[in-house]
Amino acid sequence: MELLEAMNWRYAAKKMTGQTVPAEKVNTILEAIRLSASSVGLQPYNVIVIDNHELKGKIHEKACPQPQIVEGSHLLVFAYWATLDASQIDAYMQLIANTRNVSVDSLAPFADAVKGGILSKTPEEQAVWSSRQAYIGLGSALIAAATEQVDATPIEGFNPAALDELLDLPAKGLRSVALVALGYRDEEKDFLAKAPKVRRPKEDFFIELA
Amino acid sequence: MELLEAMNWRYAAKKMTGQTVPAEKVNTILEAIRLSASSVGLQPYNVIVIDNHELKGKIHEKACPQPQIVEGSHLLVFAYWATLDASQIDAYMQLIANTRNVSVDSLAPFADAVKGGILSKTPEEQAVWSSRQAYIGLGSALIAAATEQVDATPIEGFNPAALDELLDLPAKGLRSVALVALGYRDEEKDFLAKAPKVRRPKEDFFIELA
Repeated sequence: MELLEAMNWRYAAKKMTGQTVPAEKVNTILEAIRLSASSVGLQPYNVIVIDNHELKGKIHEKACPQPQIVEGSHLLVFAYWATLDASQIDAYMQLIANTRNVSVDSLAPFADAVKGGILSKTPEEQAVWSSRQAYIGLGSALIAAATEQVDATPIEGFNPAALDELLDLPAKGLRSVALVALGYRDEEKDFLAKAPKVRRPKEDFFIELA
Repeated sequence: MELLEAMNWRYAAKKMTGQTVPAEKVNTILEAIRLSASSVGLQPYNVIVIDNHELKGKIHEKACPQPQIVEGSHLLVFAYWATLDASQIDAYMQLIANTRNVSVDSLAPFADAVKGGILSKTPEEQAVWSSRQAYIGLGSALIAAATEQVDATPIEGFNPAALDELLDLPAKGLRSVALVALGYRDEEKDFLAKAPKVRRPKEDFFIELA
C-alpha cells in the first residue's frame, strides 16, 4: 500500500480481534525498526518481541490494563539503554569497521566525536536522547505495519517499573519507554474504527518561512 | 519505492548537490509528518519549512555549520510546544468535534483524561513527552523522503537557543529539537554515499521472549 494511503488507513485500534499477524509481516515491521535512522547511528535501544499469550497476560495484569496487550498477537516493547558508556560506542565502531571493511583506527576521530557528544551528557540527558531515538523506530513500526495492513497501537500508558521488573530489563541494562501492540482492529467493537482521522490542518501544523 | 527497499536506500547524506526538491515531493513528505501518530493525538509540535536561501544561510552561519543546511533545498525544523496547557487540549477537543461531527461535551471524559495525564507532568517531563512525539514525525519524514527518492538528513547537532532566536520561536511558544535537510546526495563528494549501511544485527537488536 502506498505510504500516504497507508498512513490515512492506520489509527490506534482500541479493540483487536485476537487474530495472529503472520510471521512474514511481523518480520517486515521489525526490519523497518532495525533499519530506522538514529543519531550518529548508535541505535541506543532494543526491541523486545513478545508473542507468548501467558506472558502478555501477565503484562496485562501487572503493567498495562489496555486490552490490545492480549488482543494483539505480538507486543513490541521499546526499551532504551539505561546507561551509556564508552564500551557501547567502541562496539559500534567495531560494527562499522566490520561492515565497511575499514580499520577501527581509521574511525578514531568519529569515535572521539561520538564519545564527546554523548558521554558529556548527564544521565537524564542521555535517557532523553536515547528514548527519542527509540521513538524514531516506533514511528517506523507504525508505518511499516500500516503498509502491511496490520494494525499497530502505540501505548505510553503503562507502568514502566512493573514492566521492567516483569521482563527483567534492569539486568539487561534496559528501560521500557513505549509499547506497540500488533494485531487486527475489531471493527464491530471499536467505535473509532470508522471515525474520520483527526489531524491539525496544514496551516496550523506547518509554519512556512519563505 | 517499497518501504524496506527505500529504507535500505536512505542514509544521512553528508554532502548535497543543491538541486531543488520538487514541491510535489516536499508536500508528500510534509503530509507524512502531519499524518504521523502522536500520543493521545495531540501533535504537540510544529514543523517550520524553510526554502529561502538567505535564511538558510543565516541558520548555517549562526546555529548549524553542517553543509546540508545550505546544500539541501528545504530545511524542516521540528519544534515542540514549549509549554502545555488546558487551552491547547480544549482546542484539540474542538478539532475532534468538528472533524467527527460530535459535540465537545461528549468528549469531556477524554478531555479530562488527557488533561489529567499531561498537565500533571512537570515542565521538564512535558518537554520530554512533546519532543518524543516530534521524533515520531521526524521518522516519518525520513521514510517518506526515501520512498520519494529524496535525501533527508536528520540533524541534532545545532545550537537550539541560537536557532530559536533567529526564527523567533519563543514568541510562537516553540522550541527547536531536530532538523531535517531535504535535498539530493552528492555521490562524488560524499564518501558515505556508497558505503554499506551499518545496523546492529537482528540477534543483538531484538530480544524475543516466546
